[in-house]
Amino acid sequence: MNALRPPKYERSYTYRMSALRIGIAGLGTVGAGVVRLLAENAELIATRAGVPITVTAVSARQRARDRGVDLAGPHWHEDALALAADPDVDVVVELIGGSEGIARQLIERSIAAGKHVVTANKALLAVHGSALADAAEYAGVTLAFEGAVAGGIPVIKVLREGLAGNRISRVAGILNGTCNYILTVMRTEGKEFGEVLAEAQALGYAEADPSFDIDGIDAAHKLAILAALAFGRQVDFAAVHVEGIRAINALDISFAEELGYRIKLLGIAQETAAGVEMRVHPAMVPKAALLASVDGVYNAVLAQGDFVGSVFLQGRGAGAGPTASAVIADLIDIARGTRIPVWGAAARQLSARPALPISAHRGAYFLRLMVVDQPGVLADVTAILRDHGVSLESMLQHGRKPGEAVPIVLVTHETTEAAMGKAIAGIAKLDAVLERPALIRIEPS
Amino acid sequence: MNALRPPKYERSYTYRMSALRIGIAGLGTVGAGVVRLLAENAELIATRAGVPITVTAVSARQRARDRGVDLAGPHWHEDALALAADPDVDVVVELIGGSEGIARQLIERSIAAGKHVVTANKALLAVHGSALADAAEYAGVTLAFEGAVAGGIPVIKVLREGLAGNRISRVAGILNGTCNYILTVMRTEGKEFGEVLAEAQALGYAEADPSFDIDGIDAAHKLAILAALAFGRQVDFAAVHVEGIRAINALDISFAEELGYRIKLLGIAQETAAGVEMRVHPAMVPKAALLASVDGVYNAVLAQGDFVGSVFLQGRGAGAGPTASAVIADLIDIARGTRIPVWGAAARQLSARPALPISAHRGAYFLRLMVVDQPGVLADVTAILRDHGVSLESMLQHGRKPGEAVPIVLVTHETTEAAMGKAIAGIAKLDAVLERPALIRIEPS
Repeated sequence: MNALRPPKYERSYTYRMSALRIGIAGLGTVGAGVVRLLAENAELIATRAGVPITVTAVSARQRARDRGVDLAGPHWHEDALALAADPDVDVVVELIGGSEGIARQLIERSIAAGKHVVTANKALLAVHGSALADAAEYAGVTLAFEGAVAGGIPVIKVLREGLAGNRISRVAGILNGTCNYILTVMRTEGKEFGEVLAEAQALGYAEADPSFDIDGIDAAHKLAILAALAFGRQVDFAAVHVEGIRAINALDISFAEELGYRIKLLGIAQETAAGVEMRVHPAMVPKAALLASVDGVYNAVLAQGDFVGSVFLQGRGAGAGPTASAVIADLIDIARGTRIPVWGAAARQLSARPALPISAHRGAYFLRLMVVDQPGVLADVTAILRDHGVSLESMLQHGRKPGEAVPIVLVTHETTEAAMGKAIAGIAKLDAVLERPALIRIEPS
Repeated sequence: MNALRPPKYERSYTYRMSALRIGIAGLGTVGAGVVRLLAENAELIATRAGVPITVTAVSARQRARDRGVDLAGPHWHEDALALAADPDVDVVVELIGGSEGIARQLIERSIAAGKHVVTANKALLAVHGSALADAAEYAGVTLAFEGAVAGGIPVIKVLREGLAGNRISRVAGILNGTCNYILTVMRTEGKEFGEVLAEAQALGYAEADPSFDIDGIDAAHKLAILAALAFGRQVDFAAVHVEGIRAINALDISFAEELGYRIKLLGIAQETAAGVEMRVHPAMVPKAALLASVDGVYNAVLAQGDFVGSVFLQGRGAGAGPTASAVIADLIDIARGTRIPVWGAAARQLSARPALPISAHRGAYFLRLMVVDQPGVLADVTAILRDHGVSLESMLQHGRKPGEAVPIVLVTHETTEAAMGKAIAGIAKLDAVLERPALIRIEPS
């Protein structure tokens, strides 16, 4: 007897169902993209999935709006929550967004009703992912979310399946295209943050209210998801240290270039002897590092496994096409019968390793001060660093302007965040130090 | 009734089996790596797979050899074929290699005996992959081969699952680490092919008989597999046009640099209106292209999908750790119950689009001639190109040495391989042309 022998393909796909019937909640850019992809590649998808994937129901706010796709066939529900109860829907595709409200209710009810759920909702997964995974496990349904992180790059699948034999020690990614676009243009055009943000807003690359992106929250949602998958741990958004890019200026970008670095907003999840670090912040990356060359609206993820070594993935991180591609991949997985626990392992088997506060971080730092150019300033600054055990790798100062404000850049050897924090508090109190010191963490890759 | 509802995780994994029992044939570098990975990450793998993965049987040529791993537990079969009949083996892991002989027999018998098969054998998959897929489909077992292409990079999974919603138009990859290492060292150290090959052999980066790698055959096996997955087509190694890197010299590498290109051995599968192109050859890639920056023994794959856009993957393409990582990913998939047709669709649904001969290729070309530096040579050469409808984008000649041999480089606009072939035949016959012209295809990315 071979306990593992699966049902034959023919039997399992063709006979068990004649189509995978989906209901889509939310027909914005991504929702319309999903409908369009399913229509344009219908034959190819049916071939790969083993059965056709058909949209039997939809729900969105404005029924009359022209979305450029044919919506004559599916049943229209005024109330998105009705999708959870629609007997003609096998899978609910939630593309409404937001960590609370309708999106959350719809997913909870769909799972409870025994329907599979596919979503691109990173906020919801980051905040309520554990409870939703428990519910999905209990109900025996799939909760899939490839579209939630890095758009079309299949990073969820790569971490949860492709690298599943590895102990992952670190995942670092460029996870927010808006921030990466702004930082890229600041560097290539030498402009300041505010100016580039305004241009990005005019071009539609940044939202009217951009804080979700530029304050790092969107990247932190995604990082929380990647960390949960990489380390087999409950998703833990509250434990992610988050800093955005508002404080980055043209001066520090040009110093970075001079020192051989690029400034990128990175999401980093790292396992150390003490626990798990999860942080989103601007970082200096050596120019030769793979992540340093990812420009514009591209996203990328670098994962480090104990047997596989480094694996690097790059692609378009947002937009209708890439995100629809990810949603369809999840739907094809479901049609093919693939069933994998939400966070890569059964809930009771997830790791209990502690999340570490940012104060536990160890690394090198870029420190830029604006000081009055007068004798003794550097001696005072370096004395404070020495008193906190921080040693310097290099120092940069251009020209001299006695009595005027000049920037001084200090690059430290590896030290602790706690020591740096205390040293900076001391440095900021010096009379000759004019502004709040700029501190940017340096990442090796 | 919900026809799609899967069995609950607990029920399907824990109750149906207590372990996934594997038999390994071949205990070379990769086989020993698989044993070591399963031992070192046993707990993590059991958590992710839902059950422990245990090695119950092995077979290799020299039983006494110390492989640095504990082999006291598994049953030792003198005859690898006995693994196919071992009732304590659920999955046969074939790591013997070779497209014929024991490896092929073992896989055929294992499938016929209802066992799943995991292999890293690209030659066997490329040559007999269609027949083996038919057999696996009939028997209802999985035939998995993530380790066969690009080592630890999960490119099989990405193409077959992660990008499954897309019509893939092109896959281009650096698929052979030996060739990429040799070309990288030739460029960075300015050395000739023979010298670098000898060094690579001394360092163990190239085999004593290197022809399998440097003549492009290994890359062609891998490309045939990627093409089958990307286009949902029968694997078709015989239709792959193959050229290796023996003819690449330091002169052309330095001309490439000057023109803004890097020379890489690429495997390219491309869909055109007429059919499918599959080719492995040295190519000039713009320095800014992602594939141009992949140096040394790294592998990389760039896939282009209609909705996802470009997705780029890079990682270590060979070695015990990366290949073992891929083999374990396949085993975890099997333990989790994932069952996907070998080539991404049922055999009867694979595409019948024709494979195109290299003469149908359209592209730009780098052409380097060694000519006697005398009046009228260039006029003769350009007249022949014009007569075959080939127009030039640029021309390079350094200095003048009247009466001596000098290189002339011509870069064409897009034209057809057939036209280039005829033009070169004519050019080679000119008295002033001293050697066989060097022709290198230019790829846009």
